[in-house]
Amino acid sequence: MSTHHLLPATADTVHWGYFSRVLKPVLSVASGDLVTIEALTHHAYDDHSRMIQGDAGAESVFLWTRDKKNVDRRGAGPADASLYGRGSGEGRGVHICTGPVYVAGAEPGDVLEVRILDIKPRGCANPAYAGRAFGSNAAAWWGFHYNDLLTKPKPREVITIYEIDAAGDRSWARAVYNYRWMPQIDPFGVVHQTIDYPGVPVDHRLVEERHGILKGIRIPVRPHFGVIAVAPSEAEYVDTIPPGYFGGNIDDWRIGKGAVMYCPVAVPGALFSVGDPHASQGDSELCGTAIECSLTGTFQLILRKRETLSGTPLAELCYPLLETPDEWIVHGFSFANYLAELGENAQRDIFARSSLDGAMRDAFRKMRHFLMRTKGLSEDESISLMSVAVDFGVTQVVDGNWGIHGILKKALFE
Amino acid sequence: MSTHHLLPATADTVHWGYFSRVLKPVLSVASGDLVTIEALTHHAYDDHSRMIQGDAGAESVFLWTRDKKNVDRRGAGPADASLYGRGSGEGRGVHICTGPVYVAGAEPGDVLEVRILDIKPRGCANPAYAGRAFGSNAAAWWGFHYNDLLTKPKPREVITIYEIDAAGDRSWARAVYNYRWMPQIDPFGVVHQTIDYPGVPVDHRLVEERHGILKGIRIPVRPHFGVIAVAPSEAEYVDTIPPGYFGGNIDDWRIGKGAVMYCPVAVPGALFSVGDPHASQGDSELCGTAIECSLTGTFQLILRKRETLSGTPLAELCYPLLETPDEWIVHGFSFANYLAELGENAQRDIFARSSLDGAMRDAFRKMRHFLMRTKGLSEDESISLMSVAVDFGVTQVVDGNWGIHGILKKALFE
Repeated sequence: MSTHHLLPATADTVHWGYFSRVLKPVLSVASGDLVTIEALTHHAYDDHSRMIQGDAGAESVFLWTRDKKNVDRRGAGPADASLYGRGSGEGRGVHICTGPVYVAGAEPGDVLEVRILDIKPRGCANPAYAGRAFGSNAAAWWGFHYNDLLTKPKPREVITIYEIDAAGDRSWARAVYNYRWMPQIDPFGVVHQTIDYPGVPVDHRLVEERHGILKGIRIPVRPHFGVIAVAPSEAEYVDTIPPGYFGGNIDDWRIGKGAVMYCPVAVPGALFSVGDPHASQGDSELCGTAIECSLTGTFQLILRKRETLSGTPLAELCYPLLETPDEWIVHGFSFANYLAELGENAQRDIFARSSLDGAMRDAFRKMRHFLMRTKGLSEDESISLMSVAVDFGVTQVVDGNWGIHGILKKALFE
Repeated sequence: MSTHHLLPATADTVHWGYFSRVLKPVLSVASGDLVTIEALTHHAYDDHSRMIQGDAGAESVFLWTRDKKNVDRRGAGPADASLYGRGSGEGRGVHICTGPVYVAGAEPGDVLEVRILDIKPRGCANPAYAGRAFGSNAAAWWGFHYNDLLTKPKPREVITIYEIDAAGDRSWARAVYNYRWMPQIDPFGVVHQTIDYPGVPVDHRLVEERHGILKGIRIPVRPHFGVIAVAPSEAEYVDTIPPGYFGGNIDDWRIGKGAVMYCPVAVPGALFSVGDPHASQGDSELCGTAIECSLTGTFQLILRKRETLSGTPLAELCYPLLETPDEWIVHGFSFANYLAELGENAQRDIFARSSLDGAMRDAFRKMRHFLMRTKGLSEDESISLMSVAVDFGVTQVVDGNWGIHGILKKALFE
């Protein structure tokens, strides 16, 4: 007998820009329960009329006037903005995460199995755009391209609004328009020269919308969650941007419907959260973001107790593992556990230590671990098989702790 | 009226381990001609009885006795082996390349279009293994794993022999046995402690064959050519290992049947060569090699003159471009043109400058170039599209000039 819970996204059910082992759960579930979770994109204010207006949940989360900011802390930085003066939490971490969900009985050493049963786009609530859904792609200062532009003005940040055809399984995204980011003054009077704080209202009188772009181009959608996480144990406030052993901002488009994510539990109750919904992303997430688009997912959460893992693909799991119907996928990072490896200033230093070479090293080691532990291969067998049959790809080059994934096809094994 | 030529692999039609602008062509063709070219794997001597014995072409190329070495120079190093004493050419470059083929009328600035019409495995000529084909995978000292092993002895080189089911389009490879490399004395008396020179006869009395490995595992084959090249102009002898603008050892398994490779011509006649045949490889070629397996390809060579390229996907092409029925693929390297960028000692220094981060930078720039020049997109459109719809993957981490490829799906465009 499993229960099906509903977890809407409101100012009371989200945490913005940080993971925390000390957060009070917004829901408690038993192993096997289903949970339908609304996830909001933190880029919704790039086009308020298409992604917030008329949507009670989004309006609740994004509400920010001179007198009231419903979700004050945004990021793992100081709550008093004493570091950069950008705002509470300093935008060190940007993703709106729904949760955390407490999983009864979960303890460090266990594994949380997250089955993604369904994903639906969040339809636009503004009657002017009825029946449609929208997302935003920001080519931002943290993108791989930013200091390597050909055309002027340099540098620049550019936001592209996409419309998602929300019908059917085979859906497409098309660009609607784009605009260059112009300095925005937030309701508390802080000027944001760049996209340095999430949820800043964009005043469209200050930007120039360029329509008719990417003509004739349609992008097959790959709805997925950029962030699926359990709470890490290393610090009280952890920036949502760099991924790690706890999952987090992995930004792999394969984390979609029908996939199963396995995360090692680090704190009691696991404290599961979902965020950073994407309509589509390419491997590398080159410019810093995907098509950031609010989605609602239905998940089954299954607790795998440590003592039951021996002899299964979850034995000794110390990294986020993804299973799709046809593949096993390991995720390597510049640092497997940057929080532990980089010391006290890890959350600052990781952004200066990004490396695909390190991520490839980590992905190799994780795939070898998987093949030796769960498929019973010798090291020599594992290494040969990896070279002739495993594909390594660039997950992302924009999240500080850069990612390389390794894909093992199940069909290799009879 | 095109002519169909046959270019068998013999000691007279191959060059081993180097590209050269001064090589005498072994065949001359007109634009549009078909050429069936035999390519031999340089790893055939890992199992002489399965990959050389009874095969007149392979026996001709590999013949090496105390008195006679049919193909003396192997590599771009000094012919007198004065650098390391390994042998002529020093093994600085390892691939047996069939060619070069002179393409009438080809001049620097043109593009050579290489259509891969067919690929067939080279059947074993030894009656003991009739109707089968074999390949070798060497986990070698230049592999990504080599200094990062878990189990003893460390380090070690391991060769795995694979059998290829040569029937039908949907073929599989299975491991037959593996062995650890043991020091081998070549016919000229040089001891090879590691796999440091290509085509060294392996004395199977000195190694221990371990059968029954990789049980129950079958690998879908992806027959392709690791090396498809035109001659570079920068030096007289160029190591075949690092890929570059001229193509060369790109090691992308997508360079298979039905694909079209475009290479910028750098010297008169283009001087086209084919080598490094692979039955299968994973993205990254982690341990240093694929399933190295002799193959025969049928190619159509089409010369695209510089003055006809404007407005086509080949305009201003300064890098090897791959087209498959469904995709356009650009290949980025640690250095786009390491021969020009790294100066006089480029062929030595590239191996100390390998970097996926550099290769990602180069792949980004090439994909942007492709989108802007051939699809007419603005830089902002190109960058957004790359982030949401282009997949970047790890081509190889073992060829000095490491590779990242970017894949653009044709279906994006109506």
